[in-house]
Parts: sequence; C-alpha cells; structure tokens
Amino acid sequence: MILSDMGERKAVEIIQRILSEGNIDFGNMSDDCAVIEFGDEYLLITTDTISKTTHIPEMASPWQIGWHAVAVNLSDIAAMGGAPLGMVVALGLPRDYNMKSLEYLVEGMKACTSKFGISIFGGDTKESDIVTLTGCAFGTVAKNQVLLRKGAKSGDILAVTGELGKAGAAYHSLKNRMDEEEGIKDLLEIQPRIKEGVTLAKTNAITSCMDISDGLASSIHQLSSINDVGYEVDLVRVPISEKAKDISEKLDIDLEDIALYFGGEYELLVTIDKDKVRETQKALSDIGSTLAPIGIVKKEKRNILIKDSISTILENRGYEHFR
Amino acid sequence: MILSDMGERKAVEIIQRILSEGNIDFGNMSDDCAVIEFGDEYLLITTDTISKTTHIPEMASPWQIGWHAVAVNLSDIAAMGGAPLGMVVALGLPRDYNMKSLEYLVEGMKACTSKFGISIFGGDTKESDIVTLTGCAFGTVAKNQVLLRKGAKSGDILAVTGELGKAGAAYHSLKNRMDEEEGIKDLLEIQPRIKEGVTLAKTNAITSCMDISDGLASSIHQLSSINDVGYEVDLVRVPISEKAKDISEKLDIDLEDIALYFGGEYELLVTIDKDKVRETQKALSDIGSTLAPIGIVKKEKRNILIKDSISTILENRGYEHFR
Repeated sequence: MILSDMGERKAVEIIQRILSEGNIDFGNMSDDCAVIEFGDEYLLITTDTISKTTHIPEMASPWQIGWHAVAVNLSDIAAMGGAPLGMVVALGLPRDYNMKSLEYLVEGMKACTSKFGISIFGGDTKESDIVTLTGCAFGTVAKNQVLLRKGAKSGDILAVTGELGKAGAAYHSLKNRMDEEEGIKDLLEIQPRIKEGVTLAKTNAITSCMDISDGLASSIHQLSSINDVGYEVDLVRVPISEKAKDISEKLDIDLEDIALYFGGEYELLVTIDKDKVRETQKALSDIGSTLAPIGIVKKEKRNILIKDSISTILENRGYEHFR
Repeated sequence: MILSDMGERKAVEIIQRILSEGNIDFGNMSDDCAVIEFGDEYLLITTDTISKTTHIPEMASPWQIGWHAVAVNLSDIAAMGGAPLGMVVALGLPRDYNMKSLEYLVEGMKACTSKFGISIFGGDTKESDIVTLTGCAFGTVAKNQVLLRKGAKSGDILAVTGELGKAGAAYHSLKNRMDEEEGIKDLLEIQPRIKEGVTLAKTNAITSCMDISDGLASSIHQLSSINDVGYEVDLVRVPISEKAKDISEKLDIDLEDIALYFGGEYELLVTIDKDKVRETQKALSDIGSTLAPIGIVKKEKRNILIKDSISTILENRGYEHFR
C-alpha cells in the first residue's frame, strides 16, 4: 500500500502507533502541539512544513512564503491558548535560488514573528530541489488554562472565531484568474489567532479547541472522533465572509462547499460550557474579535448539518495530504 | 547572485543580519542550538533537515534515514552539553511512498530516540516530491554548565572526542563500491555524543565546544572566527580511525584529506582550560570515551597545521551546502 491510497490521517495513525509502543509517558499526540512540563506552565512545541510542491501557488512571493511558514506554526500555538515564545526555521532551498528572494523570504518570516512579539532564534539552511520551509514554534500556557482537543461534552456550544470561506474563495478566484493578487494574499498572509487563543484560554470556559486548517467539517469530524460525541451544526449560523458569498454568486459555486469543506482556514473552533457562552463572546469582543456559536455537542456520535431546518449529514471531507 | 555562488555560510550571514536588525534580545545565533531561559536551566532548541536530494546515498534504508534524522539533531544538543528532552519531526514524503518504508523510517527514528531515553512527541506529515525529514530536538543544561562556541582563549588546549576519518573513509569506499553496507552504516548510523557532552559540561573545564559535522578543519576555522583567536593543530596527534587508514592505503587517497577536510563526522571539538586537561580526559575515560588533545589556541588569528614539525596552513574547506 502507498501513501496516496492511505491518505495522511492513516499514515499519521501508523506513525503514532509505532512511536507510542512500549512508551508509557508518551502522552497525547492528537493535539496541535506537543506539551512539556515547564514549571507552572506547559511548554508548547509544534512543527509544520510548507513546500512549493504542494502548498504554495506558483505566483506567491518569497515574502508571502516566509510569512506563511511562520503563521501556520503560530496557529498551532494559538489553538492551545499559548503565548508564543520563539521559533526556529529550517530552510530547504535550490542551488539557483537568488539572494534577493532569500532576503524577501526572511523578511516575510520576520514580519510575522515581529507582529506576534517573538524572534526566530535559530535554524538550518540546506540544499533542496524544492523550496521547503519547516518551522518549529514554541510557546507557553498556564497549566490550568491550556486548550486541548479533548474535553467537549454533550450540551456544550460549538463556536468559531472570525469568518469562514476566505481560503475556498481564494482558491476558486485563482483557478478562474480573478483578483489573483488578493487571492494569493488570502491564502498565504493568514493571521494566526494568537490573541484570541490567549483570551479564550483565560476564560476557563472552553472545553475543547483546535484550529480549522483542514476545513470546518473535517475538523468537526476529528473532534467528534477524539471526544466520542456528535456535533449538530446550524448552517445559517456559520459566519461566512462577504468574499466567499461574492465568489459563490459570480462563479455559481456552492457556498456551503466553500465555507465548510475547504482547508487553509486558520480560525479557532471551540466548544464552550453552555453557561459561559455570553461571557466568552464578550471577552473576544473586548479584544475586537468575534466568536459565533454555530451548533451544539450531542451525546450521539453522529455529525449533522441543519439546512433550512432539515437535518443532513455533515460530510467528512476537507483537505488531506497524499489524496 | 544565486546560492551556489554564495555558499551556505554567506546565506546564513544574510539571514542572521535580517533577523537580528532592530532586535535587541536576539542573542547569539552562532551556537549549535537556540537557548531559552528555563528556570535554573537553559532550554536548548535545534532544527536540522536531511533530504534525499543531497544528504542520503541512494542505497540507504528507510530505517537508517530515520535514525540519521534524529541523530544529527541530538548531536547539536550534545555540542552544548545538553541532556535531551524530546523531539518533534516533520516528514515530507512522496505520494508513492509505501507503508512498509514508512514503518521502517519511523522505527529508525524511534530506535535513536529510545537509545537516548527520549520520545518523539509530535510532528507533521506532508506531501513532498523528495523524502525530507526535519527534526527539532530540545534539551536542557544547567546555566553554569552550558557549552558555547565562544569562550576559547589563547593557551587553551584543543581536543576532539573519538576518532576521525570515518565519514571520509565511508564516502570513498562507497564511491569505489567497496564495503558498501559498512560505508552506508558509517555515514548514516552516527552516534551523537550526548554522554560525552553532558560529561564535558560538568567538568567546568571546557571554554568552547561544537560538533564537527562540517569537518574538523572547517569547524576550527569557524571557532577561530567566533573567538578571534588562531589554532595550531599537530597532525600527528589527530586520532584517526583504522578504517580511514585502511581506505587511504588501499585507494591511495591522502589520509590528511580524509581526516581533516570531510563533513559528516559527529565528534565534539572542544577547547580546555590548560590546567584541567588531565581531569577532563579522566572524566571521559570514566564513561568509556576518549578525548585527544590535538593542538593549542594562539593569540594570532591564523590557523596552522603542523606536519612533520613543519608549520603549514590549515585550509578552510570542508562540507558546505550549495557549493
């Protein structure tokens, strides 16, 4: 069997099985970051690769590639409520890569770390046929505030930060050669939800959290499997960006598909203790952000999408590598 | 200008200049690991990539590739005297990579982490045209014991652990299709000097340290530049492996070239306070390792190789990417 038959999630299962065998203190590999005791805090560590083969549209600038490589890593720190501490980045670059591009690439990395108040402390530079950037970000979070994927229980409210559909809209506009500059910007210059993650962590109201880089529907299915519960999502409550609505109309593409089944979004998906929804929303609105309740957690392990008051199946698809 | 004109070290200079601009608390990027305050200790963080394009001979097994990816990272922890704490690994794999290979790859990674008492806590799996493994290792060291590249002073003794020339001998034997299995093993199944690094750190006798993954001569030139001193190496004192002598004789290749100017060695190169050489050697011999004095540190910033009592120039060459 080869990876394109198995898909990314099956491959990750195999890796986790082998690494955890005979390893008592192995912990939980299902979260966005690895977790290490660090005094009263947890040290959060995550690694994420982007490569020109599969992740980056041809017309992306080196600056945008640099930004993106940092941002996807910081999104994992955000998903656990962490304050970022620093990063290291390994660069794989072709022999004929030019100096100006290298400078822009590093400036893009620096712009993103600077925005979040951290530095790149070190790294590695190696020859590679394809531009490949692997970041490793670390952050900290108080032990009693850490946001985990596991913890959702029946009756909790499902909610999402910001607006969805930006990545899907960007994908379709690039494919149809519309607003290319803006499309690339939306795909690459993503904003990790650090401020939102830290604020959510402090509420002590969040029962589970992850970023939705694989898409909303796929992320819900992952939470469902980890928490052994089901989710009921009300489509009319899902916050959808104007751009997604616009592209859907112009190109006659299903808006639901753009908003629910597309990877490359970096909002946070959370479940909230049902008595603390309002105070949690207020905490986010106080920092200029939004948190939209979009559904509830059910005991029965079945994921439902309510459309025009009719229950349908929330499909388990989104972005997956190797497929 | 492109990377193949600039070489890796010039590229790293550019990256460091951009990242450090306007960044007061930036610290020192010249060490093997990034350093973060961690109570009474430093947290050490390093990242290192290996890729089938440039680092790995065709006949290497997935198990060996997995081992190697972990080991090169742990070598950086060793070079700072750190005890390893854990790792994350990002895997870039082709779509047609098969399941058995993935299993062996992960088992190789696990064998190396297990040997050094740590686990792989997390990672990332992405599609890539070429097998590429980027590890990020972390470790800890007491603040007053950390081994740095900077600190060597005139009069200190230069010394190296183990024996040199294994990587160079392996390279030439592979090139000449001799003892291929053993050659691959010597190149990939390297032994990071964790035990030696921890022991050296505890002596408080070490004034500077690095691993010699770029080769002995190249590493000495790097230390010379960082410490603003010169080194005088006595060729007759350099410990050279039997295998290197054997290959040199059989293939009529200059032994000096194999031992001094070849990357892929993972011994530790240190400078020692001149009054503490014997006790430092004893500390290493107590753990079953060796430490050979090979030269001295001089005020004048000129790197000399003494051959048959004649002073010659120690050339600044070894392995460098993009060249």
